[in-house]
Amino acid sequence: MKGSKKIRVPAATIVAFQGELGAFSQRAAHQVFGRKIEPLPCVSFDEVFEKVSGKKAALAVIPIENSLAGSIHQNYDLLSRHHLETIAETYVLIEHQLITFRGARLSQVKQIFSHPAALAQCQRFLRRMRKAEKVSFYDTAGSVKHIRDKGLRNAAAIASADAARIYGMSILRRGIEDNRENFTRFLALARRGEFSRGGGKTTVVFGLKNEPGALFKALSVFALRNINLTKIESRPIRGKPWEYLFYLDLQSDSRSRECSNALRHLQEMTLYFRLLGSYPSC
Amino acid sequence: MKGSKKIRVPAATIVAFQGELGAFSQRAAHQVFGRKIEPLPCVSFDEVFEKVSGKKAALAVIPIENSLAGSIHQNYDLLSRHHLETIAETYVLIEHQLITFRGARLSQVKQIFSHPAALAQCQRFLRRMRKAEKVSFYDTAGSVKHIRDKGLRNAAAIASADAARIYGMSILRRGIEDNRENFTRFLALARRGEFSRGGGKTTVVFGLKNEPGALFKALSVFALRNINLTKIESRPIRGKPWEYLFYLDLQSDSRSRECSNALRHLQEMTLYFRLLGSYPSC
Repeated sequence: MKGSKKIRVPAATIVAFQGELGAFSQRAAHQVFGRKIEPLPCVSFDEVFEKVSGKKAALAVIPIENSLAGSIHQNYDLLSRHHLETIAETYVLIEHQLITFRGARLSQVKQIFSHPAALAQCQRFLRRMRKAEKVSFYDTAGSVKHIRDKGLRNAAAIASADAARIYGMSILRRGIEDNRENFTRFLALARRGEFSRGGGKTTVVFGLKNEPGALFKALSVFALRNINLTKIESRPIRGKPWEYLFYLDLQSDSRSRECSNALRHLQEMTLYFRLLGSYPSC
Repeated sequence: MKGSKKIRVPAATIVAFQGELGAFSQRAAHQVFGRKIEPLPCVSFDEVFEKVSGKKAALAVIPIENSLAGSIHQNYDLLSRHHLETIAETYVLIEHQLITFRGARLSQVKQIFSHPAALAQCQRFLRRMRKAEKVSFYDTAGSVKHIRDKGLRNAAAIASADAARIYGMSILRRGIEDNRENFTRFLALARRGEFSRGGGKTTVVFGLKNEPGALFKALSVFALRNINLTKIESRPIRGKPWEYLFYLDLQSDSRSRECSNALRHLQEMTLYFRLLGSYPSC
């Protein structure tokens, strides 16, 4: 996992993401597009996709998989439903901080606010804080904003260091997550043809009948052309018990001759196929 | 997804699971082993594995993947680390109920307790309950026990119908989850050779070098023998950036000649291999 490659965009380009200012998705957006973008916080992933489809934002950044929790199926579904193009990827180390008003002590903390996923990732620390109530909030960064806006001096929030900085709050404990190997992979999205410059990694989603050898035949189109895979995942399709969706990442640009041949060959055997995009690998 | 097949075990056989009495894992245990087992609640998945390894329990039941949230990597890791055998699988429909003291009304509910994952799966309902505080708890069924034991008449818990019944509480709203297609697949585990009777489904975990065609060659051992796959998933190994773990489910019994040949053939090319078990498919 090297540093992600920056994509140059005009200053004040609007980038939609889920969460409040200071969310990990915003950090991912800055890693890809630099500091001068205009971040657009959204309540849900659906809203993020709609902002770009409806031209209220030029770009979006969404989490797609986490090293502990696995693939975020909901966002694969949204990628299949909306006709956006994946133009970049980046990885963010998820480090959770316990955030309070400046000067607070741990013994004063009676309530801890955060998103349910963040609370779940800090179980060991939270078990030690037995007497503090754990309060679930719709967003990590939003929980910092909440305790600040309400002046909750006996409360803490679990969120990123960025969120502490943005809302002028203080970090009482650093790195309280159970597992230090907690990375989230994000994808950057745009409307088709508007920002993409291709790159050495390609993501596709396709459906196959569940027959012996079906996947083997599908993968042959890449093996025959020496195209390497970096991710494969099957997902049963509910309501169609004998069909499967596959998520695949390839180390190849879909514009190259070998890759475009392989993908054409693949479509001869798929029930469903969607090229999500080619982008620089990181 | 048909009804799971029962495995006959002596009455009062101890079955470990994560959570309090009434957890979805306990329901999975009853689906596989019937009503007469002795359920053993554990605080963590590590403890569940240790109970069986250390002979404090004969059997265990663990969740391994959810139709919305994907594979539970932590339990695949524990399956690799402990030398237990997978002897059965079952699916449980995850239906969340809003549980209160009998006679409570929705407008009285000022606090809602549940596990972070359950709170995350009921976002739509919880957004409508804007004025109620959402409190994160270590377990869904445990949150029902908590509001009962503390006599919290202005609180509700989100958990299974079983939990409401076990703790003598009332269901105020049924099926409050955002997505009705919420199934969790559970595996039943035993010490090697103690309960297994094989069956038409086999689960293996193996590691490959990340080389073009490596996975294709690995899958050839099944395609050449007409053995069908029902799940495949790759997972990068942290700290070994060019190696991958794969989770694979096969429609074949590892004791059959063709499957045992295929698995021997597979081990010629893997860096790491673990047969988790063969069990009846459901």
